[in-house]
Amino acid sequence: MIKTGILGATGRMGAHLIKNVMEDDTLELSAVHVYDELKQELPEGVLATNSIPEMLKVCDVVIDFSAPAATQELCEAAMENPTALVIATTGLSVHQQNLIEEASKKMPVLYASNMSAGIALLKQLVQQVSSTLKDFDIEIVEMHHRHKVDAPSGTALTLAEFAAKGRGLDLEKVRVSGRDGQIGPRSKDEIAVMALRGGDIVGRHTVGFYNDGEYIELTHVATSRETFSKGAIRAAKWLVDQEPGLYSINDCLGI
Amino acid sequence: MIKTGILGATGRMGAHLIKNVMEDDTLELSAVHVYDELKQELPEGVLATNSIPEMLKVCDVVIDFSAPAATQELCEAAMENPTALVIATTGLSVHQQNLIEEASKKMPVLYASNMSAGIALLKQLVQQVSSTLKDFDIEIVEMHHRHKVDAPSGTALTLAEFAAKGRGLDLEKVRVSGRDGQIGPRSKDEIAVMALRGGDIVGRHTVGFYNDGEYIELTHVATSRETFSKGAIRAAKWLVDQEPGLYSINDCLGI
Amino acid sequence: MIKTGILGATGRMGAHLIKNVMEDDTLELSAVHVYDELKQELPEGVLATNSIPEMLKVCDVVIDFSAPAATQELCEAAMENPTALVIATTGLSVHQQNLIEEASKKMPVLYASNMSAGIALLKQLVQQVSSTLKDFDIEIVEMHHRHKVDAPSGTALTLAEFAAKGRGLDLEKVRVSGRDGQIGPRSKDEIAVMALRGGDIVGRHTVGFYNDGEYIELTHVATSRETFSKGAIRAAKWLVDQEPGLYSINDCLGI
Amino acid sequence: MIKTGILGATGRMGAHLIKNVMEDDTLELSAVHVYDELKQELPEGVLATNSIPEMLKVCDVVIDFSAPAATQELCEAAMENPTALVIATTGLSVHQQNLIEEASKKMPVLYASNMSAGIALLKQLVQQVSSTLKDFDIEIVEMHHRHKVDAPSGTALTLAEFAAKGRGLDLEKVRVSGRDGQIGPRSKDEIAVMALRGGDIVGRHTVGFYNDGEYIELTHVATSRETFSKGAIRAAKWLVDQEPGLYSINDCLGI
Repeated sequence: MIKTGILGATGRMGAHLIKNVMEDDTLELSAVHVYDELKQELPEGVLATNSIPEMLKVCDVVIDFSAPAATQELCEAAMENPTALVIATTGLSVHQQNLIEEASKKMPVLYASNMSAGIALLKQLVQQVSSTLKDFDIEIVEMHHRHKVDAPSGTALTLAEFAAKGRGLDLEKVRVSGRDGQIGPRSKDEIAVMALRGGDIVGRHTVGFYNDGEYIELTHVATSRETFSKGAIRAAKWLVDQEPGLYSINDCLGI
Repeated sequence: MIKTGILGATGRMGAHLIKNVMEDDTLELSAVHVYDELKQELPEGVLATNSIPEMLKVCDVVIDFSAPAATQELCEAAMENPTALVIATTGLSVHQQNLIEEASKKMPVLYASNMSAGIALLKQLVQQVSSTLKDFDIEIVEMHHRHKVDAPSGTALTLAEFAAKGRGLDLEKVRVSGRDGQIGPRSKDEIAVMALRGGDIVGRHTVGFYNDGEYIELTHVATSRETFSKGAIRAAKWLVDQEPGLYSINDCLGI
Repeated sequence: MIKTGILGATGRMGAHLIKNVMEDDTLELSAVHVYDELKQELPEGVLATNSIPEMLKVCDVVIDFSAPAATQELCEAAMENPTALVIATTGLSVHQQNLIEEASKKMPVLYASNMSAGIALLKQLVQQVSSTLKDFDIEIVEMHHRHKVDAPSGTALTLAEFAAKGRGLDLEKVRVSGRDGQIGPRSKDEIAVMALRGGDIVGRHTVGFYNDGEYIELTHVATSRETFSKGAIRAAKWLVDQEPGLYSINDCLGI
Repeated sequence: MIKTGILGATGRMGAHLIKNVMEDDTLELSAVHVYDELKQELPEGVLATNSIPEMLKVCDVVIDFSAPAATQELCEAAMENPTALVIATTGLSVHQQNLIEEASKKMPVLYASNMSAGIALLKQLVQQVSSTLKDFDIEIVEMHHRHKVDAPSGTALTLAEFAAKGRGLDLEKVRVSGRDGQIGPRSKDEIAVMALRGGDIVGRHTVGFYNDGEYIELTHVATSRETFSKGAIRAAKWLVDQEPGLYSINDCLGI
């Protein structure tokens, strides 16, 4: 049994993670990290702690759906006690991303803004279409539930990066997040990443490529949040057997 | 035969209008207003002039797909020589909108940011859904070709106004045209109107209503620019028989 | 507290209904009808019975998401012991539909193939567009999860009926459920109702209206099955205060 | 200048082909094949003939958007007078497909049910997703204008073949073209190819992949018929420089 810890257990993904880890035959829920009280009841023997180092002591792998500060603490603590890390936190600073890379020299780390298989594949398709159909204008639209606090989504930004990479563009220079007024004709290189918010949409991303006479739209829809927790669990199982290094979902899926 | 003039004959819609008017059995192309040369050949007997008053002298109705300044000139000239006016110009100032209203006291004027039957009906549906499903979040996305210079489209703004009207909201206070950064949860009343640009898309508008558990999306797509010229011609034929007043496409279609 | 019974408690909707009734402050779960064992634990005092008459004795209202035979039994039993009935079963025979109508003379009955507010409104919009834009071709596409055993969905057929009604057509004569081979040009009146199946899609319906130059698509998506259980509960609360009669979700929502 | 002939000049694509060939700087319109009269005026020096052998005598390349019988005649005649052939005819019999292969031993032949760059790329993406995400259910929906006489479109069938190839399935055994009645749960391997008809839709294809928790939809839309004539012309220019052999649009685009 793979001893598994969860960081971010009180967040939106926490309950799904706890449930899905407990249902899994090859994982054992060893520890959850909590600041406050946990709504959910835990089986006996599971450590609930607000100390990341204590958590690491009892885990083979930690799944992290928390926030940037906690992820930073996790990486720092893991340098002292190397443990396989599956990190899904978004909105990380450059410093925090560097910390992840640093940590991956001592332990296997899988970092992805989106744990679903579909998004892992879509990133590749987007780069491929972007690079093959260079005349086509690229526009990205994402939609999430009304409670999401940041925009655009980490996944939309990742998709935009793959679109930019397909043409050798620097996303920071070409990204547009809104249009209003007398904006003039569209410039060839710009890539719009528009964020819609409403209802309980789990996650919908469309990357469109538009030319005179034809267009292509590639859409991914997450219909349930378990897509992400199950994807993280699949990643955790694979990661515990890897050498130190920085991995992506694509490595895990072999695509 | 209804003597018909065209304002904006050199623009994107001009060639379609000239062709569709000439094909129509009950309309006669009497005059086109041009600043420069017209690419298209005109049948003998059609007046090509850069003087709006001269144009009005030979017309029963004028169809106007021009720009705000020309529309203003048209209204001012028509006060001296009342003529049925079908106006499709977008981006008008408050002063120019008032001029249209002034003109409509002396002659029949039909003003619409979009001449298609589908959009005329969609406006009503949008108001109806907005007013019935008051808990649903409203998000609007429009897409047009890469050459369009203003955003959002006049049609998208009109649809947003009908959405706002369904809930007694003031669009100016609740409209959002982009989202970027740590924006926090969505506020209940905001209405996003997002503009996409690319390829040769004639016009696509989606008005979405999103709640926990379900959502509705109402989409209109114009597949050819003739939708607008034919809609304007249908309006012109109807308008010449009306009393002075300000009309919409809905009046013309009886919906 | 409104004493509530559930028919179809072991089915796909059962667990949601039990949970949502128990969460509701004005409803009390009094009885569930079961043939076999129920996976879910029930609070003390709830009657679990395989006898519909026994169930009716302890209920003010029964919510029925079962199958045609059970719905028939419910109607027959309720004739002896009138109780408000919320019926969501699809695939009923003409005889069974007549039974529902018969029952509604003695008690309030709300019958709907879909309990969501969005679908209730969409039906009206579909009839309105169908009747206003008579030249537009109508095509309906529905999609549901891979486990659904009948096609097209009851909701799609209801939407098709409203589309047909908008033009005075008889759906049985104009409905098409597939196209293959040398079929010739589309006939004016036909209404296709195409059924897609796959994944865990809760329910997606698009009614499209297509003409030369433009088209409109009206789409409804259920993002979670609770839409239906919560819609049924909203209906139940409203129904207990009504006179005997046959009602729809639209009556309940006042639209 | 490349001497170009057109087969199918009186059909839906004919006028576009004639216009686009005449506009092109490196092509010269040498001959058009006609059974009846041609609506369009041709420049002086263009041969209009009902004899395919006569046409071949004056052409370096022939572009064929005709019907199966004419394509067969073209292949037979070209065996006597080898000429580069761009063939876009759909609905060919096995015998006719064999004839094309036979012809391609003596001359370069490019055969494609769809001449657009987007569809050429989409076929590859479809195979890739089908093969990578083997658990996902595949459903294809195509839509075309109300005048189209066959269903599903040749392009939809080609996309379905690539989807089947990605999993080693035989399309003939797994293809579904409609669903009606008590059909039972979806079988794992079936691939639905559903055909919608209406309005003036030039061509819209969606290939969807659906799993528990997520789905991907890949959509291609042709917004104007010139996509196909310009694609055929791009193919013709490339083909005249190739060795005898059977080519696809992907070869021409290097993808």
